[in-house]
Amino acid sequence: MNAKTKRAKQTYEEINRRLRALSLPFFLHSWEEERMPEAGKPYRNGQLVELSAIAYEYQTGARYTRGIETLYADRESLDSVLRHEIEEAKRNADKLAKVPKEDYLAYRNVLLEAYPKFVEAKNTGKFDPVKPYLKKILAYNRKYVVWEETDSLKGYDVLLDEYEPGMTVQKYDEFFGLIKTELVPFLKKVLAAQKPVHPAFTERKFPAEKQKKFCEYLGEVMLFDKAKTMMGESEHPYTNNNGNCDVRITNHYYENDLASAIFSAIHEMGHALYELQVSDDLQDTMSGGGVSMAVHESQSRFFENIVGRSAAFWHRHFPALKECFAEELKDVTEEDFFAYINRVSAGFVRTEADELTYPLHVLIRYEIEKEMFEGSVTEENVEQVWNAKYKEYLGLDVPDAGLGVAQDMHWYGGSIGYFPTYALGSAYAAQILFAMRRDFDADAAMGDPTVGKIAAWLKEHIHQFGSSKSPADILQIACGAPFDPHYYIDYLKQKYAKICGISAE
Amino acid sequence: MNAKTKRAKQTYEEINRRLRALSLPFFLHSWEEERMPEAGKPYRNGQLVELSAIAYEYQTGARYTRGIETLYADRESLDSVLRHEIEEAKRNADKLAKVPKEDYLAYRNVLLEAYPKFVEAKNTGKFDPVKPYLKKILAYNRKYVVWEETDSLKGYDVLLDEYEPGMTVQKYDEFFGLIKTELVPFLKKVLAAQKPVHPAFTERKFPAEKQKKFCEYLGEVMLFDKAKTMMGESEHPYTNNNGNCDVRITNHYYENDLASAIFSAIHEMGHALYELQVSDDLQDTMSGGGVSMAVHESQSRFFENIVGRSAAFWHRHFPALKECFAEELKDVTEEDFFAYINRVSAGFVRTEADELTYPLHVLIRYEIEKEMFEGSVTEENVEQVWNAKYKEYLGLDVPDAGLGVAQDMHWYGGSIGYFPTYALGSAYAAQILFAMRRDFDADAAMGDPTVGKIAAWLKEHIHQFGSSKSPADILQIACGAPFDPHYYIDYLKQKYAKICGISAE
Repeated sequence: MNAKTKRAKQTYEEINRRLRALSLPFFLHSWEEERMPEAGKPYRNGQLVELSAIAYEYQTGARYTRGIETLYADRESLDSVLRHEIEEAKRNADKLAKVPKEDYLAYRNVLLEAYPKFVEAKNTGKFDPVKPYLKKILAYNRKYVVWEETDSLKGYDVLLDEYEPGMTVQKYDEFFGLIKTELVPFLKKVLAAQKPVHPAFTERKFPAEKQKKFCEYLGEVMLFDKAKTMMGESEHPYTNNNGNCDVRITNHYYENDLASAIFSAIHEMGHALYELQVSDDLQDTMSGGGVSMAVHESQSRFFENIVGRSAAFWHRHFPALKECFAEELKDVTEEDFFAYINRVSAGFVRTEADELTYPLHVLIRYEIEKEMFEGSVTEENVEQVWNAKYKEYLGLDVPDAGLGVAQDMHWYGGSIGYFPTYALGSAYAAQILFAMRRDFDADAAMGDPTVGKIAAWLKEHIHQFGSSKSPADILQIACGAPFDPHYYIDYLKQKYAKICGISAE
Repeated sequence: MNAKTKRAKQTYEEINRRLRALSLPFFLHSWEEERMPEAGKPYRNGQLVELSAIAYEYQTGARYTRGIETLYADRESLDSVLRHEIEEAKRNADKLAKVPKEDYLAYRNVLLEAYPKFVEAKNTGKFDPVKPYLKKILAYNRKYVVWEETDSLKGYDVLLDEYEPGMTVQKYDEFFGLIKTELVPFLKKVLAAQKPVHPAFTERKFPAEKQKKFCEYLGEVMLFDKAKTMMGESEHPYTNNNGNCDVRITNHYYENDLASAIFSAIHEMGHALYELQVSDDLQDTMSGGGVSMAVHESQSRFFENIVGRSAAFWHRHFPALKECFAEELKDVTEEDFFAYINRVSAGFVRTEADELTYPLHVLIRYEIEKEMFEGSVTEENVEQVWNAKYKEYLGLDVPDAGLGVAQDMHWYGGSIGYFPTYALGSAYAAQILFAMRRDFDADAAMGDPTVGKIAAWLKEHIHQFGSSKSPADILQIACGAPFDPHYYIDYLKQKYAKICGISAE
């Protein structure tokens, strides 16, 4: 590394420290956003936009961009972590340079204002409160894809690539095509073979306090280390982190639904484990967090479904559940519970969908997003289109926006192109399971008192790297092969064929 | 205003928006500091120091300081709010320019690290954990007063002036001299006339949940508007705000002490009311918060003592208290409660002291702080000096540091010169009471369902101005006269002479 590169590295690291520091108020704001005093929001939003302006100025400033150019030009002399980081930084800097400051800041403000409107829409079941915000968000994203188009990435592809680098409409079409061909007919057979669940689950109340207590227990199982974590509450469960020693999840407790908070907790703790296990060495770099949305989702859904809905897991933990809900589950057996949490049925809500219908929920969102950029879906007709697709794919009549188009915060938080990574992440998770099984008896380890063995494997093969490698490279390291969606199909068919006593064909 | 002044005003306002935005992470951090994951603190502290560096650079940068100089030179052309603000800004900029960046940032880090050590010292009763931090804090403050000395302000005066502009050792010596001459002999007579309190208060437990519920009730009485406020918990109760629509207080609930949380709540709600009632017009300026520590404290102690320990207040609210603690207070009358909350006794803890011994607690701290700069008090002997003074002034043998030198966070948070404002604030409060009585029957209004009438008077005469005028000017507006400590002496003597049935001489 020559003296010029060395100086550029110093500048780059100095400004990155600033940028990491400027992420703190956003982290803290999101943690308390739903509890903060309502009347304080306009002042708060003004501050957050101003902080975005400071970060934007650092990111687009000559010192930073010139530093990145210098490092990029001499990238052969950098260690592999910094080299990968600089390639990403160069791409991001080139992209941000195309976004005018006024648009960028005005959009931050739109997103801050949209969030409480999303909560209102979800809670009231009416799309109206959030509609004008979706209009603005779509308008910005349509402008954005034009700014960012390249020879190889056009329209919606620009957004898809942001959430999972390398993914395009062509690749997702292929992936979702396989799901339609393979899973839709299989789903019909499974649905026909379903038996009713124990009435306890639909007829009884499960007190929120007991649910919280059981989620604390799950925290111990999932190595959700109290010294490094917090559990909170929000409308829509999520995980957020500030470095690898402050990782927070939220949950939502429904007293008429025992499974919701349990599987949200395991899901979010899967995300959390990923962040907790990123190497300490990466904490002072820009590679210190999970690499991509699909890889992140592969971790959360690995724990939620592959571990958390396994027979071994509940053979170990059902006694604790039963102890916690002694009255509510007094006549319920382990087998009843296992059947309940693996029951397949067409429902309205993505986050509460079983493993088989889940990718269809995602497919619907993917198709709508495509239409937002390639077709005619706008804020005006998105609710009708949504409802029509739920009828077509799942045979359901959506009763209101809270159970429909306003159930997920993503679009109203500016995340368009994000949803498809959920199905992709589930598919990654299945492939990871097959890789894990080659190294140890992963299925037996799901029945251990904690997820320690599984976590150690994931740390070694995925988590430790943070975002210091590309998603494709990490998958290659973990699985010894490129992504192959057939593992996902195989996993689902084998699992449900066994549960339902039907053929896996 | 000429074109040059106008441009300077734009720059000044632009950077102030940045500075107000950069205060947000500190506000949010302090709110969650005691609950955040322990292991996340080093990373967090690094971010906060980095954010301090960004703010320091804005504040000491040529654009800002030149803008201030330009505005200062043309201050005759500014409106009165901006003019006062620029005079303050000029003083602050000149002071900050003398603080080397490395010292400034290293000190931020010391303060961040000291806080959990203070909590540990307070909880364990041992001074040791916090001692090395006090050493660093004293060393910095000794350097600081040298940097900031002027012809008229030397040594400890530099710090006193920061917390209450215009106050010096000479003035405080006079003030505390009057307290010693007038109150110490009176206190002896009062102590001799004390009767035992109802045993319920010392023998029973008052469940924290009920205390919280009653503090919610007090929130309604004190106009602690839910849309603009939050109530939390911390080791040491405090008030903090982010603008005038997000004002937060904390409390600490002791089950063996009914008065503690009640009077902490009223005290902090007094601070909060001040911030809530600052004019909206000032929110986009640097004058949007309370003006000084003593004026702030005058508001909190006005409500805590003058209103909150009045007979009228409890004649109105005792039934609600009794309803809340139906079992615990079953045989306790309004008179018993009034005697309990106005009982005078020498105790260890400043924040729980009665009105008469309170200024002696402050006097002790003031004398020690003076000795830190003019004499021989260091981190090595501060605990012995503290204990000796408690013996001398209050006749007490301090059992441990938690009830002694490590009971208040101030010194360990870098606040030296702050304590004397507490006694001064109490004296301001008494003078304000006499002014208020000229305008309406303030004593009767203390018995109203809410503090509405009193709050309206305070808004008009004090709160609305924020820090757009000097403390002396605000006091002049509110009282129609300069500060006079005799009102305080008179108020205390009249009150306790009546309660104890003794002469006010």
